Amino acid sequence: MNQEISSRLQADAPIGVFDSGVGGLTVAREIMRQLPNEKIIYFGDTARVPYGSKSQETVTRYSRQIVRFLQTFQVKTIVVACNTASAYALDALEQEFDIPIIGVVKPGAKTAAEVTRNGRIGVIATEATIGSRIYSQYIKELNKDVTIYGKACPLFVPLAEEGLWQDPVTDEIAKRYLTELIDIDIDTLILGCTHYPLIRSTLGKIMGDKVSLVNPAYETAIELKQMLEERGLLNQETPRLGTNQYQFYVSDGAEKFKRFANSIIKYGILSAKTINIEEY
Amino acid sequence: MNQEISSRLQADAPIGVFDSGVGGLTVAREIMRQLPNEKIIYFGDTARVPYGSKSQETVTRYSRQIVRFLQTFQVKTIVVACNTASAYALDALEQEFDIPIIGVVKPGAKTAAEVTRNGRIGVIATEATIGSRIYSQYIKELNKDVTIYGKACPLFVPLAEEGLWQDPVTDEIAKRYLTELIDIDIDTLILGCTHYPLIRSTLGKIMGDKVSLVNPAYETAIELKQMLEERGLLNQETPRLGTNQYQFYVSDGAEKFKRFANSIIKYGILSAKTINIEEY
Repeated sequence: MNQEISSRLQADAPIGVFDSGVGGLTVAREIMRQLPNEKIIYFGDTARVPYGSKSQETVTRYSRQIVRFLQTFQVKTIVVACNTASAYALDALEQEFDIPIIGVVKPGAKTAAEVTRNGRIGVIATEATIGSRIYSQYIKELNKDVTIYGKACPLFVPLAEEGLWQDPVTDEIAKRYLTELIDIDIDTLILGCTHYPLIRSTLGKIMGDKVSLVNPAYETAIELKQMLEERGLLNQETPRLGTNQYQFYVSDGAEKFKRFANSIIKYGILSAKTINIEEY
Repeated sequence: MNQEISSRLQADAPIGVFDSGVGGLTVAREIMRQLPNEKIIYFGDTARVPYGSKSQETVTRYSRQIVRFLQTFQVKTIVVACNTASAYALDALEQEFDIPIIGVVKPGAKTAAEVTRNGRIGVIATEATIGSRIYSQYIKELNKDVTIYGKACPLFVPLAEEGLWQDPVTDEIAKRYLTELIDIDIDTLILGCTHYPLIRSTLGKIMGDKVSLVNPAYETAIELKQMLEERGLLNQETPRLGTNQYQFYVSDGAEKFKRFANSIIKYGILSAKTINIEEY
């Protein structure tokens, strides 16, 4: 990103946020909390969810289409609010597009590297994110003396999407996934999938008080704010009443998305629109 | 389908079978058992799975692309081995393409209408299939005096895909889904999603001996055989040794698909190829 590109981006332009589906709403929610003046265009790829079991090539192709769609809104930056897409596609997107793009993995990795005391960090995520070893790579760049234990938890996404956020079944599945991480005495656990903050209380209960849970959504909003400040791109003005501050687009099932979104975000989402993402 | 079209189809041509992913392998398996001379081209849309939570428009668009892909193999017929695609897309496909296309819903509905004694039939399936009310519609055409109770079971697909075919968690989820069907005293239960035969023993245990489980995969293979016989399209010759009798294509993750397929089908699947289905 050079100065020339920064200078043609507008501070009052919206921020593009995308995810494979509804999980990225936990990131959008953090941006709304920490950056209340910003406008957001959210895209959830509900026609092709989940990304976590798909290949790098497929996830990159999908992510590229979404960035092209978000660019039609003249967004000033894009947040890849999906761990799998951050792991697989971020490098390619940064090379191909000339606006700042930030993912959720680096901010989460940075915090975990800072927080750990015993140097044993667990990462729970989709198969794809774990397979990419991307958290491990970023954390090792910051701190060579830590050991990272990755664990794929494929059932957490469907359980969270079914609303079983506090439920004996989710407890049981979480125990099975997390036992090995408890046994090797991690003191820090990265919630490496944007759905997982929805079952945070279950995860906290099983891991116990001594383990710090790192939610990359929170850290990403902090990094986003810093980046916008440095580039002079923070929106200084509160959007006027009646402005459509948050807009939601999906590739399928807008009504269902809206219901789910309203259970996560307290701003009252009035509408979501379906678009054909394969055209971008 | 008129005589002219039938006559240019070849008896030794392969049968196209498609599904949103791996579930349709339970249908392919039945075709292999009941029609051992037939060649099969299987396509699993693993890049865009699951279909069960997607809209009719999206599922129809995807199904159309897949039929065009299968036609490149000069298939003599196509089996829509996915309940959601059968519910949403079969009518459109039959109108647009000039080869015989059969779905899994009608054969399952027919059997259930014949099997029930007390006229109370349960259907378990994805949200999309239940929402379409297609089983109800077909069964009522055959027998007006039955009552059909539909129940969406969205967690069965991820549980089956994770291999928890016999597991306390699957028991617990199944109990929650099925209790209301037991309470209203159904005597017949249609397994309205191609994944569900994989957890058949769990379903049977919970429903008890008095409830007949209808597996549309089995009935579909019977209907397929009848249809091919009527049209003179049954393959009379055993494929020669060394013939590639069964070919598998997916839109993503061929290696993972192959592993899963080999746990379902006992023929030893040597390879699966990934293709870009969006190009069709």
